[in-house]
Amino acid sequence: MRVVLINTGTELLLGDVQDAHLAFIAREIFPLGLRIAEQRTVPDGPAIRDALLHAFSHADLLFVTGGLGPTTDDITREIVAELLGLELIPDPQVIAAITERLSKRRIRMTDRIPRQARVPAGAQVLPNENGTAPGLYLRANVNPALQSPHLFVLPGPPRELQPIFRESVMSILPEIVQTPSTIERKLYKIADRGESVIEQAIGEKILAIPGIELGYCARPGEVEVRVIGEADAVEKADQIIRSELGLSIFSTSNENLEQVVVRLLTERKETLALAESCTGGLLADRITDVPGASAVFAAGYIPYANEAKIDICKVDPALIEQHGAVSEPVAKAMAEGARARARSTYALATTGIAGPGGGSPEKPVGTVFVALAATGRETIVKKFFFPSDRETFKELTAQVGLDLLRKKMMSGQ
Amino acid sequence: MRVVLINTGTELLLGDVQDAHLAFIAREIFPLGLRIAEQRTVPDGPAIRDALLHAFSHADLLFVTGGLGPTTDDITREIVAELLGLELIPDPQVIAAITERLSKRRIRMTDRIPRQARVPAGAQVLPNENGTAPGLYLRANVNPALQSPHLFVLPGPPRELQPIFRESVMSILPEIVQTPSTIERKLYKIADRGESVIEQAIGEKILAIPGIELGYCARPGEVEVRVIGEADAVEKADQIIRSELGLSIFSTSNENLEQVVVRLLTERKETLALAESCTGGLLADRITDVPGASAVFAAGYIPYANEAKIDICKVDPALIEQHGAVSEPVAKAMAEGARARARSTYALATTGIAGPGGGSPEKPVGTVFVALAATGRETIVKKFFFPSDRETFKELTAQVGLDLLRKKMMSGQ
Repeated sequence: MRVVLINTGTELLLGDVQDAHLAFIAREIFPLGLRIAEQRTVPDGPAIRDALLHAFSHADLLFVTGGLGPTTDDITREIVAELLGLELIPDPQVIAAITERLSKRRIRMTDRIPRQARVPAGAQVLPNENGTAPGLYLRANVNPALQSPHLFVLPGPPRELQPIFRESVMSILPEIVQTPSTIERKLYKIADRGESVIEQAIGEKILAIPGIELGYCARPGEVEVRVIGEADAVEKADQIIRSELGLSIFSTSNENLEQVVVRLLTERKETLALAESCTGGLLADRITDVPGASAVFAAGYIPYANEAKIDICKVDPALIEQHGAVSEPVAKAMAEGARARARSTYALATTGIAGPGGGSPEKPVGTVFVALAATGRETIVKKFFFPSDRETFKELTAQVGLDLLRKKMMSGQ
Repeated sequence: MRVVLINTGTELLLGDVQDAHLAFIAREIFPLGLRIAEQRTVPDGPAIRDALLHAFSHADLLFVTGGLGPTTDDITREIVAELLGLELIPDPQVIAAITERLSKRRIRMTDRIPRQARVPAGAQVLPNENGTAPGLYLRANVNPALQSPHLFVLPGPPRELQPIFRESVMSILPEIVQTPSTIERKLYKIADRGESVIEQAIGEKILAIPGIELGYCARPGEVEVRVIGEADAVEKADQIIRSELGLSIFSTSNENLEQVVVRLLTERKETLALAESCTGGLLADRITDVPGASAVFAAGYIPYANEAKIDICKVDPALIEQHGAVSEPVAKAMAEGARARARSTYALATTGIAGPGGGSPEKPVGTVFVALAATGRETIVKKFFFPSDRETFKELTAQVGLDLLRKKMMSGQ
C-alpha cells in the first residue's frame, strides 16, 4: 500500500514553522505495517491542486494536512471537493460543535468560521476536540466516476491533528489495511543505553530468526526496538530481547517514561518531589503532563540560584563553596533536602552545566549529577556527561532521572 | 526562480529523525528574494532518481540533502553523476581532508570511506568542516548535452549542512540570483488574541494595499502574521498592523515569548520567580531553555499539593479553606509569597484545573487564575478559561502568564 503525505502551508516553506506531521504520522502508522513512501510540502494556493492530482494517481492512502482554517488562504477543503467532484454541504453537527466550542470560550462567531463546517458529500467527519475545523475521511473512489485513494484531510496544528489521528484515523485505518492476521508486532522502549549498544546485544541473534523484521528508532535518551513477523518468530525474538535487556526495558506499550513513573507511584501509593537545577522544570512539566499526577507529585522546586538551593533544599552553603553547585555532594543534599521538605517517598535532584556558558576544564558544559533520595534508603548519585545543545541536555538529564526512579521501583528495592 | 528542495533519507520517512533542513534553508535564502516552491522527502534508494529527474525539469535551483555518507544506502552522489552523465573522479584534496579528519579522531579508515571523496567532473567541492562527505555544487547545464538546474548536493546531518550552507552556498547563490530583490517581509507575533480576531482587525485594510501578500499561522496561544511585498507596500501594512495591534505584538523577529521575557529582564536587570501549580513546571522549563536565563531566573516553585502552597509560598491555610486552591486570593498569595521568598522583582503564579478530573459546576475543568506580583506594585490577577486537553491547557496558561509579564515590562509600568 503506497502511502503519501502532503503538507500544505506557506509557513512551512518560509521556515516559520517546522513540520512535525511527517515524523508523527510515520510513527503512528508503523505498527500497522505502513510506511510513508513520499512526503511533499506545497504552499497554500493552487499548488495544492497539482500535488493532490499527482498523488491521486500515485497513492493508495493519502494524508493531506493544513489549509482547513477560517482564513482566506485556507482552501484545502474546497480543492478536495472540487477535484473529487463532490458538493460541499454545511454539516449541522459540525456547526453545532463549532458554536458550542466558541460559546464555551466566549469567542465571537465571525463570518468566516462557518466555512469550516462545510463537508464534501460522502466524507466522514473526524471530530476535532481541540479546534474548530474537523478532519475528513474520504474512502477510495468516493466519487465512483473518478479514481482516488483513501484520503484523510487533517488540520495543520499538531495539537489538533494528533488527537484526531489517534482517535479517528487509527480506528479507520485497520479497516483499510488488510494486514494478514498471523503477523504480530512487539515494541520495547529502552532509556539506559544507546542504539548501537542495543544492536550489539540483540541484533545478530534476532536476525538469525527466519522471517523476522527488526527495526530501531532512536530519540534523545530513548530507543525503540520493534520486531515484526509470524507469531512464533516474534515469540522467539521476545525471549531474546527480554533476557538480554531485562530491567532496561521500561515499556512494551506506548507509555512514555513519565507515564510509567506516575503509574508505578500510583500503584505503590508513593509520592515524588523534585529539586531541579539544570533541568529547570522539565521533569516536573513531564510528570504533570500525566493525568492523575496530582495524587503522587508532592512538590517541585527549581532552585536555580545557589541561595534558593540553600533556602529550599537546606543545602549547607559550605558544601557549595567546597565542591561547587554542580557536584555529587550538592546533588545528594538537594535530593535529601527536597524529600524532607515535601515529606515524599522519593526525591529526584539534578544539577549540571547546560551551557553554552559556565563550563570549566574540570567541569565542562554537559557535566551533570542526578540524585535519587528514598525514605529509609541510601541516596543514589550518578554522574553523566551530555555535551549537546541546552534543550537536548535537559531532555537527556530528565530521561536518566526518570529511568533511575523507575528502576528503583521496578527492582523492588 | 523556482527553488526545489529534495530531502533523501528513509529515517525521515520512518519518523526517526525530524527534518530541520526545510526551515533552515528557507530562512537562509529568503533575504535573496528566494522562496522554496516545493519540498519533497524520498527514501534512500532508487526513488531519489525519480525525484531528481522530475526536479531537473521543474526547478531552476535545486537543493538535495542526504545520502552522501559511507554506507551502502548512501547513493545520492552516484545518482547525480549518472543522471548528469558525469564521471566520478577521486579528488585528492578531499581524500587528504578525510584522512586528516579521521586520524585526528583516531578513527580507522574503512573500505567505504574513500567513496565520499569521489566528485562528479565539473562539480565544485564545498568543504565540510564537521564531517567526511563534502557538499557539491553543479552549475546549471553543467553537462552541455543535458538540461539541468543549479544543483547543490549537501550532507544530511544538520550540524554538517548548516555550516556548509552559510559558508559556501550563501557565497555562490548571489552569483546565480541575478535580479536583486526589492521584496521585503515582516513578521508579527501575537499572544493575546486569536487568528480570526486579528484577521477582523487588520485583514481587509491590509489586503486593500496593492501587491501585498498576507499570511497567518496559529499555534497554541500564539498567532504569527506575515506580510510580503514591495518595500512601500510592506511599510504601509506595517503602519496598519502596529496601529491596530500595538502592544499586543510581542515580537517582530523570530523570538518566542520566553526569549522576549528573558531579554527584557536582562536589559532591565530584573529577576523572576515562579509559583506554578497547574502549569507544573512548564513556565520554568521554557524560561530555562533560554541561554542566560540563570542571570534573571531566581527560583521556581511547583507547590502542587496544598501543603506545599502553605509551606513554600506562605499561603494562609484559611484562604485555601475559604476560597479553594483554585481562586483569585490563592493565586495572589502564591505570587506574593514566591516573590518574597525568592527576593525577585517579579513572580508569576498559576493555579487552575487542568483536568481531566477535578472540575466542579462553579469551577469547571479549564478554569485558571494567573497572578503577577511586582515589587512595590499592586498584584495583578487574571482569570482564564481554557477547556482543552491537559498539555494544551498548560501551554495556553504559560502563554498568558509570560505575555502578562512582558506587557507589564514593555508598558513600563
